Amino acid sequence: MSLADQVLNGDIRAAARMMRDIDDNRPLAVEELKRLYPHTGTAYIIGITGPPGAGKSTLVDQLTASFRKKGKKVGVVAIDPTSPFTGGAILGDRIRMNRHASDEGVFIRSLATRGALGGLSRSTSDVALVMDALGMDIVIIETVGVGQDEVDIVKTAHTTCVVMVPGLGDDIQAIKAGILEIGDIFVVNKADRDGADRTTRELTTMLEMRNAPEGGWNPQVLKTEAQRGVGIDELSGEILAHRDFLFTSGRIADFVRERNQRHFVDILRDGLYRRALAFMGRDGTLERIVDGMGDNTLDPYSAAEAVISRMTGGVAEP
Amino acid sequence: MSLADQVLNGDIRAAARMMRDIDDNRPLAVEELKRLYPHTGTAYIIGITGPPGAGKSTLVDQLTASFRKKGKKVGVVAIDPTSPFTGGAILGDRIRMNRHASDEGVFIRSLATRGALGGLSRSTSDVALVMDALGMDIVIIETVGVGQDEVDIVKTAHTTCVVMVPGLGDDIQAIKAGILEIGDIFVVNKADRDGADRTTRELTTMLEMRNAPEGGWNPQVLKTEAQRGVGIDELSGEILAHRDFLFTSGRIADFVRERNQRHFVDILRDGLYRRALAFMGRDGTLERIVDGMGDNTLDPYSAAEAVISRMTGGVAEP
Repeated sequence: MSLADQVLNGDIRAAARMMRDIDDNRPLAVEELKRLYPHTGTAYIIGITGPPGAGKSTLVDQLTASFRKKGKKVGVVAIDPTSPFTGGAILGDRIRMNRHASDEGVFIRSLATRGALGGLSRSTSDVALVMDALGMDIVIIETVGVGQDEVDIVKTAHTTCVVMVPGLGDDIQAIKAGILEIGDIFVVNKADRDGADRTTRELTTMLEMRNAPEGGWNPQVLKTEAQRGVGIDELSGEILAHRDFLFTSGRIADFVRERNQRHFVDILRDGLYRRALAFMGRDGTLERIVDGMGDNTLDPYSAAEAVISRMTGGVAEP
Repeated sequence: MSLADQVLNGDIRAAARMMRDIDDNRPLAVEELKRLYPHTGTAYIIGITGPPGAGKSTLVDQLTASFRKKGKKVGVVAIDPTSPFTGGAILGDRIRMNRHASDEGVFIRSLATRGALGGLSRSTSDVALVMDALGMDIVIIETVGVGQDEVDIVKTAHTTCVVMVPGLGDDIQAIKAGILEIGDIFVVNKADRDGADRTTRELTTMLEMRNAPEGGWNPQVLKTEAQRGVGIDELSGEILAHRDFLFTSGRIADFVRERNQRHFVDILRDGLYRRALAFMGRDGTLERIVDGMGDNTLDPYSAAEAVISRMTGGVAEP
């Protein structure tokens, strides 16, 4: 039985192996993903983003418990940048792991961000796909919302929750317009802290001030204390309300189209890059180019054009 | 006279125009960059990274003033993610702009991060190149060090300063190993705050514990109060010490090689992607693929392989 078939049969260890293959960029993983693909598209994907220290891991943990109580199977993809400043998530993960370790209805996976061969949003989509095929009803993607990569990842979610904390930038100017566009739901976590009401009020005002499209979704600002489990049921209720909106308004069709296009383009871009590396690796092209740049006899722009021309053999001239 | 020639003559307005062209992804910008390229490579590039709220903008401002006092021309590239949580930088920029506005020896440029066509690290390198060609002795790249994109950007710097603040994650576990690899110099800013000594001590211990390579650079932890200008001369002195190390140890050669390779690969990857978009745009290929994904008759992996095969016309088969 192929790995894909095992995953479709609900084999958790097969799913873990497949995700490892994805993470390691194994060509075999692609063949298995092709087999899985037609059987996916049923999981509901929730994105949780926000600055470091907002308590996202705890919130995800509580949401997971909340959905489990409703009988939903929950997959969690935690993006754990190689980058330094999000270490909190690691501890958080470990705690979560322990709590849900014996629960077969929960599947947690931390994704490390990789270097040059990157494609973080591609591998996140792929891992979410495996969780979908495995039969998870809900897939939660948790990411630190600072870099462009991370913002892109959140766009693959049906419902995106932006998590803030009181006092994070007392100056409301610090919250850029971008944040309002990303979130379907806003959460002020650690709501027992000073300034929670002010942050909530200011967010609400900013949301009211923008020109919301007619008949569009109207994002709410919810207060939570994830640590104590306060406000979690309200949050999961609001997520389901947004889900209902997507389906009853028919917007789900546009969303799926956009997401599919983004996923395809990610895969294409990644594939082209690998092909180029293999192509240049054959005859030392890359070394020659870097040498030329070093002694200023070659500029990288002309070099890239030349490689692309040779690679495409004139087929795809602009 | 071409835009490139004007830049090489030190024309600041021409440089600004060229950077705008780069930001807007104009094909013309590439032609100008080709002309500039042979005349670059003299600027010393300093990367400043750290979490939001660490006071990076103020620190960059002070460093700029410090290098100006030494007669150096200073360019600043501030990466300003579209993303929400770094709004502080905007205010900071404005303040800096005012202070150095009348100084011809300072050139400040904020780079917005873009969406899909991205290539943030590519455009950062390109903008730094223009500053180099314009005659800036020092180019400071300031970025929020959270996403992978941002970490990649920092790798283009000769000397990278990682800025921390006391109490940011009281738990030192929160600081991942990755941070130690990135930084050539560590700065504990806002050193008048409680816990500054502890953070400094813990960082120092972590640096001592790791297996530093024989004959390598030994990163120091410096304390600053950027707001009051405390510790800035020490920091700029340490940056110059690292610069001396790079040159006297001969490591500069490896560094330049790696940086050139990264720059070339960024340009190549970007170029391939554009070429693919243009190629698919001719005959509605993209739409057909997204349709096929929507009704589950086509998977994105096979579709990407097919597009790449057609694009490369068999020239670059694996």
